[in-house]
Amino acid sequence: MAERRRGGQSLLFPSRPAVAGFASLAGPKEAEGPLGATFDETFSDDTLGEKSWERAEASMLERTARLALKKADLTQRDAFVFLGGDLLNQIVSSGYTARQLGAPFLGLYGACSTMAEALLLGAALVDGGYAERALCATCSHFATAERQYRSPLELGGQRPPTAQWTVTGAGATLLQRGPGAVRLTAATIGRVKDLRQSDMNNMGAAMAPAAAQTLCAHLEDLQIRAEDYDLIVTGDLGRIGAELFLRLCEKAGLRLQGRYVDCGCAIYGEEQDAHAGGSGCGCSACCLNGWLMEKLRRGEARRLLLLATGALMSPTTSQQGETIPAIAHAVRLEAEA
Amino acid sequence: MAERRRGGQSLLFPSRPAVAGFASLAGPKEAEGPLGATFDETFSDDTLGEKSWERAEASMLERTARLALKKADLTQRDAFVFLGGDLLNQIVSSGYTARQLGAPFLGLYGACSTMAEALLLGAALVDGGYAERALCATCSHFATAERQYRSPLELGGQRPPTAQWTVTGAGATLLQRGPGAVRLTAATIGRVKDLRQSDMNNMGAAMAPAAAQTLCAHLEDLQIRAEDYDLIVTGDLGRIGAELFLRLCEKAGLRLQGRYVDCGCAIYGEEQDAHAGGSGCGCSACCLNGWLMEKLRRGEARRLLLLATGALMSPTTSQQGETIPAIAHAVRLEAEA
Repeated sequence: MAERRRGGQSLLFPSRPAVAGFASLAGPKEAEGPLGATFDETFSDDTLGEKSWERAEASMLERTARLALKKADLTQRDAFVFLGGDLLNQIVSSGYTARQLGAPFLGLYGACSTMAEALLLGAALVDGGYAERALCATCSHFATAERQYRSPLELGGQRPPTAQWTVTGAGATLLQRGPGAVRLTAATIGRVKDLRQSDMNNMGAAMAPAAAQTLCAHLEDLQIRAEDYDLIVTGDLGRIGAELFLRLCEKAGLRLQGRYVDCGCAIYGEEQDAHAGGSGCGCSACCLNGWLMEKLRRGEARRLLLLATGALMSPTTSQQGETIPAIAHAVRLEAEA
Repeated sequence: MAERRRGGQSLLFPSRPAVAGFASLAGPKEAEGPLGATFDETFSDDTLGEKSWERAEASMLERTARLALKKADLTQRDAFVFLGGDLLNQIVSSGYTARQLGAPFLGLYGACSTMAEALLLGAALVDGGYAERALCATCSHFATAERQYRSPLELGGQRPPTAQWTVTGAGATLLQRGPGAVRLTAATIGRVKDLRQSDMNNMGAAMAPAAAQTLCAHLEDLQIRAEDYDLIVTGDLGRIGAELFLRLCEKAGLRLQGRYVDCGCAIYGEEQDAHAGGSGCGCSACCLNGWLMEKLRRGEARRLLLLATGALMSPTTSQQGETIPAIAHAVRLEAEA
């Protein structure tokens, strides 16, 4: 058996699974932001014509998944495994999408790290010969997240400046063996980090140490330097988390200057009142499957590392006084030489 | 690249990952049931001395995971990937366990199918050379599930006879390359089946079609017959679901007589007032990692198929009138010849 393991946390995919298709959908606030033009579709009614926001979220994920399949010229339902997850209890958006797609389904939960987790496992299934194609998709919706994690929107609660705004958006990537302009070549599985932060209105601070740990492990496991990447991208640390992340990287001797972006910082403009920035499973998913994939496809970046971070608490455990454990998974995407 | 895919849904693991260790813990009601003597540990206080049932559940999972590692003579935290999930919102029991173990963590959500999903992905990571060892573990707790999915225990609500009783229990399996008396040799990824059942008090009926679909796909993909198994085991269909499952199998021309058991039916005695039987992630997990593994180890069964089923709805979507989508994942375990 070939060894595809590197160091304590990393995996190599020697067959270099290709991105056969990708798609992103986003909501009205995201459409107005700096990345508005990079999404495949945007919508102005965040119910998407459904009778509940939960149904809207599932419908958005399904549309995104079907669009990625269509862009890869794939319609056959038997030809892929679907790996998905979302922020809703019991990942119902993904479950209902799996029902509609009819494909073999593996449900994941990594909070906002789920896009990277899905890509990591999808790449292993494709590279290992266990699946011909893997559809990796995830989503989030501002209105469903607010009422599940915080309070009903109708209350009109105030948010502190450290709070982040859950992105209404979805992203999907279809991986397969064979030719392709963008390849998934390596990944790093995160470990849970918990620095005993318990403020649910400051998730960026809780997640930054996990992102730094995974980046350090990735570079060490693969014996490479941060400079080997054109772009290092975190999922949704937001302004406060991103600053902490950079400080932790600096402490570890890493130079990210000019090669670092955070999707949560990039997705909304300063004037959009999104406080510390975007968050949610859909944030890195819709940024990756549009903006960032296009950069790779056009050769503006040749090597990109996506570090998607997730906060693993629940409202119940938070109320019980537990702190916020966080995780970050990483995947390396490369433009074909 | 070797092809390890079979048919539309199945995977082969030619390196035959070995079960290096396994462990099960269970609560007071399970200890009094017919399988009481097969668990590694049982406890009479279902709080395990913790201040909340949620903490108790996480503590139970951690103890089970550590026990499986100990039984495999493994203490080094770097040496394995942890794949886990549970029934709680945001799979917090698994997240907190991952924090305590310190290992690279992949969070899964497959409702009560999670044990099979974890084993399936763990086996692929080990067989494919992506991980040296995979610790696959899951759990459920009657008290946390009741208050999250149904109503607070303090209300003392009545349960209809079709309802199942969530098992307080956990199970963990450590897979690795190398020698071992029990091997994981193949698996089948489930598709979501939804026959438009919406009664949350009759999950067995919602899940039975998924189990039958996965069994049929497994046999067809691998070109084998039901008679090739000594034991076909469903996770937690309970008495009503198991009867429906057998009827669906009969319709498909499968003979399961004398070779079929359901963990949900096996775990409680008739006199224990558990209505239709046991359910929950922990049900198949603690039955597999004790009772069933011992059968394989002692040669009482040489080939076993675990079909763990999960119902993928949430209380929110149920209240919104959605039906219950269900899934079943399968793993084949074989005693070393």
